[in-house]
Amino acid sequence: MRITFLGTSAGTPTPERGLPSVLLENEGEQILFDCGEGTQRQLMKVKASLGKRMKIFITHMHGDHIFGLPGLIQTMNLINRTHPLEVFGPPGIRDFIEQTTVPAMCEPAFELTVHEVQGGEIINYKKYTVAGVWAEHSVPNIGYRITAGRSPGKFLPERARALGVPEGPLWGTLKAGMPVILEGGHEVMPEDVLGDPVKGIAVVYSGDTRPSGGIVRLAEGADLLIHECTFSEELRERALAEGHSTARGAAGVASEAGVRKLLLTHFSARYPDTTVLEEEARAVFPETSAAKDFDVYELRI
Amino acid sequence: MRITFLGTSAGTPTPERGLPSVLLENEGEQILFDCGEGTQRQLMKVKASLGKRMKIFITHMHGDHIFGLPGLIQTMNLINRTHPLEVFGPPGIRDFIEQTTVPAMCEPAFELTVHEVQGGEIINYKKYTVAGVWAEHSVPNIGYRITAGRSPGKFLPERARALGVPEGPLWGTLKAGMPVILEGGHEVMPEDVLGDPVKGIAVVYSGDTRPSGGIVRLAEGADLLIHECTFSEELRERALAEGHSTARGAAGVASEAGVRKLLLTHFSARYPDTTVLEEEARAVFPETSAAKDFDVYELRI
Repeated sequence: MRITFLGTSAGTPTPERGLPSVLLENEGEQILFDCGEGTQRQLMKVKASLGKRMKIFITHMHGDHIFGLPGLIQTMNLINRTHPLEVFGPPGIRDFIEQTTVPAMCEPAFELTVHEVQGGEIINYKKYTVAGVWAEHSVPNIGYRITAGRSPGKFLPERARALGVPEGPLWGTLKAGMPVILEGGHEVMPEDVLGDPVKGIAVVYSGDTRPSGGIVRLAEGADLLIHECTFSEELRERALAEGHSTARGAAGVASEAGVRKLLLTHFSARYPDTTVLEEEARAVFPETSAAKDFDVYELRI
Repeated sequence: MRITFLGTSAGTPTPERGLPSVLLENEGEQILFDCGEGTQRQLMKVKASLGKRMKIFITHMHGDHIFGLPGLIQTMNLINRTHPLEVFGPPGIRDFIEQTTVPAMCEPAFELTVHEVQGGEIINYKKYTVAGVWAEHSVPNIGYRITAGRSPGKFLPERARALGVPEGPLWGTLKAGMPVILEGGHEVMPEDVLGDPVKGIAVVYSGDTRPSGGIVRLAEGADLLIHECTFSEELRERALAEGHSTARGAAGVASEAGVRKLLLTHFSARYPDTTVLEEEARAVFPETSAAKDFDVYELRI
């Protein structure tokens, strides 16, 4: 799994930092978190294909997180994309896409499905699952967790045979993680016949939020938490007023959730150098880095 | 007067070329022609101020020419812009701005005036005039001409006295370019008492168009014609079908209009190297260059 930061600024871009977007690539599939203005060009700069399978998860309806959507859709049209595109986001996202692409004459010719997420859903795909929770911002904001490569453990036929489970449909039931009862009443549990479960990789993306209990629960034990960090602790009053996190606040979430690594993003333009934010966070949670545009992180299952 | 190319690609950006936008700076005022996605960041890269006086002239409603507007307005809000902003464009531009900024919660806190242009208007400002004409594209597209520094010539009091025009209101009439009749019936023409007129500088921006008689008339005698050049002559059938110009077509317009200089822009992504287009145009109109992002041209009155 590969994570590429496409834009790491907060509300306004800077010459060095684009507007919010993070690309997650996993087994040939692309997942985009947020789509700030300029995302399509950042995708081109990292040589990502706009024709491949892609799902876009939008955290909230503020312009800096969505204004890249209409142009991305227009370009996908112009390059004759054939793969469907799915966009997930809070209520309002469907109307926004329609009201920008229709008057600008770039309604998608490919299949576009827009899902308005209410938070709390878990979507199961073949290669990964996505969970969303409401975070705490000035407008509804969804934090997302992607879990990939998770598996209940390999089925071990020799163990099943030793326990007297006959080859056939009962094996399938055990493989699917459910217990079976043998003739004679003996119950066999799936863990009796499965190898060690594979934990997989879990990545959480917070969107814009105050340090939030919802994000702590969502990120529990995750390998990577990508958390917003608009201000330093010096501006904590402003962070509170605007529904944002300070570096220390983000680090507190990482620490409570027990994640392996915290990556800070979404920096106010007042921090051309983010060292002060990185250091503030590391005092609470040492495994912290501040992301820059085009930073790439590889995660192995 | 200074012209800065902010984006020189056609419909899709490339890693090297942003989406269409040209900045014209004249005596402390900024004029933007088109506002493709990413324009606000390009403006930051050339250190243009987003707080200064600005007028934006949109040529047509295709997404690649307008998708930078909502984000630019959002950023102007976030930096607490106080100067008013005026946007001119074809019918539909007002709804587009409203339908993008309202759901994304970035309605302008500063004064924003949107003018839906019908073509054919001439707007007179203190320092320049703007004329617009319909060009020939797949959708309504307005070409714009900016004329700055034009003046009817300095009033020469000694000549007025020599012709017997008494100091007073008649001098004002002559200064304003109108004739006066003296006591006794003798008519004095303004050119009798004015110095040589100052021609000023005229710049024409075509937007997306076929080689068009309207643009030829608009650009007559202009100092600079910025003309779209999506394809080379090899793809003239496609240019015709899509309402675009080839390099040779653009050069023909420059030649017929008798402009001083032709700058080509709006290149299809198939031309990472635009030499072929420049050469094709120069065969018809030698004073041609192909623009690149961040190219700057200075024009003197």
